Amino acid sequence: MPGEFNLIDKYFAHRQANRKDVDLALGDDCALVSPPDGYQIAISTDTVVLGTHFLADADPAAVAYKALMSNISDLAAMGATPAWFSMAISLPEIDEAWLAPFCDAMFELADAHNLQLIGGDTTKGPLSISFTIQGVVPKGQALTRSGAQVGDWVFVSGNLGDSQAGLSVILNPDDASKPHAKELVLRHFYAQSRIKLAERLRHHATSCIDISDGLMSDLKHVLKRSKVSAQLDIASLPITQQATEFYGDKLQAQLAALKSGEEYELCFTVASENKAALNDIADKVGCQLTCIGRIIANAETSLCDITLVRNGVALSDDDPAKQAQGFDHFN
Amino acid sequence: MPGEFNLIDKYFAHRQANRKDVDLALGDDCALVSPPDGYQIAISTDTVVLGTHFLADADPAAVAYKALMSNISDLAAMGATPAWFSMAISLPEIDEAWLAPFCDAMFELADAHNLQLIGGDTTKGPLSISFTIQGVVPKGQALTRSGAQVGDWVFVSGNLGDSQAGLSVILNPDDASKPHAKELVLRHFYAQSRIKLAERLRHHATSCIDISDGLMSDLKHVLKRSKVSAQLDIASLPITQQATEFYGDKLQAQLAALKSGEEYELCFTVASENKAALNDIADKVGCQLTCIGRIIANAETSLCDITLVRNGVALSDDDPAKQAQGFDHFN
Repeated sequence: MPGEFNLIDKYFAHRQANRKDVDLALGDDCALVSPPDGYQIAISTDTVVLGTHFLADADPAAVAYKALMSNISDLAAMGATPAWFSMAISLPEIDEAWLAPFCDAMFELADAHNLQLIGGDTTKGPLSISFTIQGVVPKGQALTRSGAQVGDWVFVSGNLGDSQAGLSVILNPDDASKPHAKELVLRHFYAQSRIKLAERLRHHATSCIDISDGLMSDLKHVLKRSKVSAQLDIASLPITQQATEFYGDKLQAQLAALKSGEEYELCFTVASENKAALNDIADKVGCQLTCIGRIIANAETSLCDITLVRNGVALSDDDPAKQAQGFDHFN
Repeated sequence: MPGEFNLIDKYFAHRQANRKDVDLALGDDCALVSPPDGYQIAISTDTVVLGTHFLADADPAAVAYKALMSNISDLAAMGATPAWFSMAISLPEIDEAWLAPFCDAMFELADAHNLQLIGGDTTKGPLSISFTIQGVVPKGQALTRSGAQVGDWVFVSGNLGDSQAGLSVILNPDDASKPHAKELVLRHFYAQSRIKLAERLRHHATSCIDISDGLMSDLKHVLKRSKVSAQLDIASLPITQQATEFYGDKLQAQLAALKSGEEYELCFTVASENKAALNDIADKVGCQLTCIGRIIANAETSLCDITLVRNGVALSDDDPAKQAQGFDHFN
């Protein structure tokens, strides 16, 4: 069994990209980078733990892709361009059959984003991987959660709900026989990168978040930070034919779209005058963008709340769609 | 049991310092910082795992201090000034009696270094804490492992060996009755910060590393990077009276000094013309600095090796000091 330093050499040190702003990567006490003048640095940390975020039989390549993509998605949500990342990995033992495909997938995704591994820590312990990712964004152009204004339109990229369907298949053997089960599992692990979209949204969106906990839950973070409310039209939610067939009917697929976490799509708001420009952006980056609602003023009795309608008509209180909840690790 | 977001609010969000270069800390998809022009950023990641790095009955305040100090020590080893850090913490459940003192100690140490928590991730899983720390250093002034030159003097800060003695007490109940046991356990958990020393070494040291794996092991990293060898005099190793009494004799304390990890002292090299300036620096930062050897050219038969002598006399091959080894998590 190779030692820690051999492990770093074998799997990590020789695989790095060569960004010009990385002055020193692996192999010293710290990495050294030279950020460009006039830029801010966006930083995010995410951890995946065996048993909590993935199962022991999960494909290591899929685990690597999903874990790193969730971090890339956080940069996208800020309108930042990926630059550097660090990895802290705990392993109960060195299992080369697991590590090799994990590293291949991680570096393939990183390379596709000109994202360089600059450091990390390898420790003995229960299997978990924690990435800290850094991106750069021109000063003042970051997309935050706090800029949504009354009258802005709420948009979402891609489709929603497929990831949760895939997770159901992973967790429930019975779901494996449902329509499109294999395809939806792949969608769960392999979200599309929204970085190119995010870079173009810098001058158009007033707020942005990525959907990691579920549309309802994540949009509420935007509403709280922006001190506004929102109205969403369930009928306009972008759901796939596959999800509809998997869930058996459209209503269930719409419910999944409201609460499905780990979609890694962007939910963002734009002012009316920028709405038309989104068609052009959608074409250029090859990403479907769907208007799903509008930012409204807070009611006196409910602050930062989401009102659901279907084709413009209010839902009754016993409509299942009203029960949609976000995902919280400790609840 | 509060949810993840309440947890972040309760323990982390309201405790942050307010650095002017932090544009956005917790509560968005990423943190945003504005690094100063003309500086490099030094970045390091370290993880501590229950069972590997600390035991279940360890004082949570001590665990927090030690975990964060090991990261601060990495910045010191680069001559960088602490700025921002992120924390990924996995917890099997929310135990407020553990979290509260952990956070108090973490923020106390961070505040003392003007180090601001800018982000993190809270997940359910086996207890582990991973810090990613960032510091700033004027461009070109970072202390790396690669600059040691033949003829340079090898120095070490503070004393060596106490941390390993403390660890022995933690792991072996029998050692609790040895002299100074309690004091040495405290020393194991509570290393002194060497940031002020490191900042003054920027213009004097040719290379630097912090002692986390053991003097022999860590100095070898410097030697390999710098393509030189070294001669160390065991008689000059800075050991304490407490360690000598704990280990029973001076030889055992010296052996501990050679291999004791997690000392978080700096080992650095200086050219002859800068040797005298170290007295002044030692006085100004209140830190003992000891010359323990010299950088020598590689022998034809042994590259990047350490030759041990005692009072200038070569050791025999069966001298116990020759067996000193570094610490490697997977060996």
